[in-house]
Amino acid sequence: MSKTKPSIPKGTRDFGPEEMGRREHIFSTIRKVFYKYGYQPIETPAMETLSTLLGKYGDEGDKLLFRILNSGDFLSSATDGDLQDRNLRPLSDAITDKGLRYDLTVPFARYVVQHQNEITFPFKRFQIQPVWRADRPQKGRYREFYQCDVDVIGSTSLLSEVELIQVIDEVFHRLEVAIEIKMNNRKVLSGLAEVIGERDRFSDLTVIIDKIEKIGIDRVMTELKDLEIAPKYLEQIRSVLTFSGGPQDKLKFLEEILDGSSIGIQGVKEMTMIFNYLQDLDVNATVIFDMSLARGLNYYTGAIIEVVSKDVQIGSICGGGRYDDLTGVFGLENISGVGVSFGADRIYDVLHQTNRFPNTKKSVSSLLLVNFGEAEEKYSLKLLQHIRQAGISAEIYPDHAKLKKQLAYANAKNIPHVALVGASEMEEGKITLKMMHSGEQKIMTLEELLQFLA
Amino acid sequence: MSKTKPSIPKGTRDFGPEEMGRREHIFSTIRKVFYKYGYQPIETPAMETLSTLLGKYGDEGDKLLFRILNSGDFLSSATDGDLQDRNLRPLSDAITDKGLRYDLTVPFARYVVQHQNEITFPFKRFQIQPVWRADRPQKGRYREFYQCDVDVIGSTSLLSEVELIQVIDEVFHRLEVAIEIKMNNRKVLSGLAEVIGERDRFSDLTVIIDKIEKIGIDRVMTELKDLEIAPKYLEQIRSVLTFSGGPQDKLKFLEEILDGSSIGIQGVKEMTMIFNYLQDLDVNATVIFDMSLARGLNYYTGAIIEVVSKDVQIGSICGGGRYDDLTGVFGLENISGVGVSFGADRIYDVLHQTNRFPNTKKSVSSLLLVNFGEAEEKYSLKLLQHIRQAGISAEIYPDHAKLKKQLAYANAKNIPHVALVGASEMEEGKITLKMMHSGEQKIMTLEELLQFLA
Repeated sequence: MSKTKPSIPKGTRDFGPEEMGRREHIFSTIRKVFYKYGYQPIETPAMETLSTLLGKYGDEGDKLLFRILNSGDFLSSATDGDLQDRNLRPLSDAITDKGLRYDLTVPFARYVVQHQNEITFPFKRFQIQPVWRADRPQKGRYREFYQCDVDVIGSTSLLSEVELIQVIDEVFHRLEVAIEIKMNNRKVLSGLAEVIGERDRFSDLTVIIDKIEKIGIDRVMTELKDLEIAPKYLEQIRSVLTFSGGPQDKLKFLEEILDGSSIGIQGVKEMTMIFNYLQDLDVNATVIFDMSLARGLNYYTGAIIEVVSKDVQIGSICGGGRYDDLTGVFGLENISGVGVSFGADRIYDVLHQTNRFPNTKKSVSSLLLVNFGEAEEKYSLKLLQHIRQAGISAEIYPDHAKLKKQLAYANAKNIPHVALVGASEMEEGKITLKMMHSGEQKIMTLEELLQFLA
Repeated sequence: MSKTKPSIPKGTRDFGPEEMGRREHIFSTIRKVFYKYGYQPIETPAMETLSTLLGKYGDEGDKLLFRILNSGDFLSSATDGDLQDRNLRPLSDAITDKGLRYDLTVPFARYVVQHQNEITFPFKRFQIQPVWRADRPQKGRYREFYQCDVDVIGSTSLLSEVELIQVIDEVFHRLEVAIEIKMNNRKVLSGLAEVIGERDRFSDLTVIIDKIEKIGIDRVMTELKDLEIAPKYLEQIRSVLTFSGGPQDKLKFLEEILDGSSIGIQGVKEMTMIFNYLQDLDVNATVIFDMSLARGLNYYTGAIIEVVSKDVQIGSICGGGRYDDLTGVFGLENISGVGVSFGADRIYDVLHQTNRFPNTKKSVSSLLLVNFGEAEEKYSLKLLQHIRQAGISAEIYPDHAKLKKQLAYANAKNIPHVALVGASEMEEGKITLKMMHSGEQKIMTLEELLQFLA
């Protein structure tokens, strides 16, 4: 075997103990809130058949799928012609039939259809797993990253939208991240497209409107103008995108503008109901009605949600919305659902930049027993067993190394207490406890030690 | 988009809420014990470069790696000749440079070498992640499954072996699985090979001895005979493999047999020390010295460990050993380590067959609020907020469905209590609580409800 200088594929990451503790803080907070609101976990395989994945994320998404080479004679379905002409597209279909999941939404839709007879609807599920995208890696964008998805599927009730706002609010409140929750409704945007006679170009419109955060209102208007929308309609769009006021003002304004579009009025009704319910509940976050929020994904059909940090400009840290027919492509029609996805990596960055990570003591022993030699280690093993039996996380240094080295180990690992048990301690049945932080030492019995550490 | 009948790749699995709860019981038990003994978590990417993976698992293992098709022009390094001749081996190397991890051991070795300057040795780490193998799927063998690895690396101390036995013991004690821990030492086997003049065929010998559980002593002896080992040596091997008695008897016996092999005597010394230490400690499991235990993997160099259930015959549910040079292949020499891996899927089967899964209440709401209509749901949302603020997991049925349907939902989801809040309850400020198990109903105030559910 040759010596290989070790490295990992670009866009992927190792997580060491400290990062793991911080990430677990995020995941366990999210998980606890999901459970509290009655959501249950599922997991799906890392690999899905390509027929499940292809065509669900647009042409661009298809290109970003990681495909898995078929086992054995992977060329068995490849034609001589395609091989000779190096026809990438048909060849890639011939030599791969599985891919790594690209998100958790499509596998969830597949899961719901496949297991529809075992599921009690409405199905409230969450899923926290990595996804893979062959994107060009850059700061904050990875080829392997975790998504935390929570959805209710099988109900059209707006209570689910309200509940998801509460879930988002509680997650970020627990994480001590101040947030703004932006909401809009694709029906409102549809209505707007309808009243300006542009229903057919709804998708183009939303793609442009979606850029407003990045490029600003003026450039959005320029791009809309390039679509050759009549000036009076352009003015109407601008008035919606720039309207300022509270949710109630906006809803009133939209009621007038969208008069004549039944889908638009339906969107206004939905938003009215959601804001009415929210008004009565304690919500820490600022919830705003952002009529310029569009969200790119075409499967959204109702309320759309996006969350940003108030303190760190890093883009959306959570987002989602209602979809009326996610499972249709797998043969199960008319199942409406709504869900949001928490972006663990960006949340990590926000907590890091705002210094919100707690001390993750959980992952560190409370005590290191120093190893002075063979007789001492044998004696210490018994002590250690008592300490662990009391539920205290503890360890012994495995080698008879110099005291200095053993203390350096405790230091590096952030172990707060060190027990010194040498010949005299053994004789007296005592333990010398050293506090690593202050350097202070105390002599105590095992019982006193257990009490002290409890 | 065409309708696809949804399915998942063979050998992979979906996990629904109930299985997730049970699996989490296993993982969280293992994780808690790992933490208690001072081990810290790491995670590595699902994909590793093929240069990290290839050549580490033998030719058979190389074939079982899932390879990931390169992005973009994946044929750019493929030669016309190889394409024309369909040369699978060079082509697969040309079109893939990443693979899915096959176990957690090689990525761990790669991690240790890559991050050696950040790590404080001895490094006690654990890792719980899925691995992928393109094996033929069969009962109990999957293409995606979880491993739970725990290792100490950077120390030759036998205290680590002792500690891992304690870790194994505590994990299975907490899981209520009665186990037998079998131990042997590769140095003992090396010594045996040496005294019969077969050091060169050590690997062949261990492969045959390793089969004893499956094929029995007689067929093992036949296979050894086929290696043309002299009759007197065959007798010696048989005497070792069939010797019965306690650890001390076996060690004494081996001391005689292995006299003259320094490596063999070293193995006996190590085992003596390990059993001495264990004697003084409380261990629930039966720990036996099994001189026929060989374990297939060639990187083991010292103690080897294998765990079986006393109640379910399913093979090894945990195993491992000491390796003296796992990181050498990545350029870091002379770093000894020892570790074991828990097989979550087999442990699942054992718990399932022996009915040892606890009620996983954690994943289920304690209370469902029935939804009687618009006025009631608005009122109930406030109640629900109070209930959740008290830390109680609860939910409201999102739709105004028939009572029967809502109760069926609570039933299917195993929600133990249902709150009925209709017009009369709203008027009186009361809640009617229905126990799903007994059907009993009680009328109470919110405060009384919170006390009842706390």
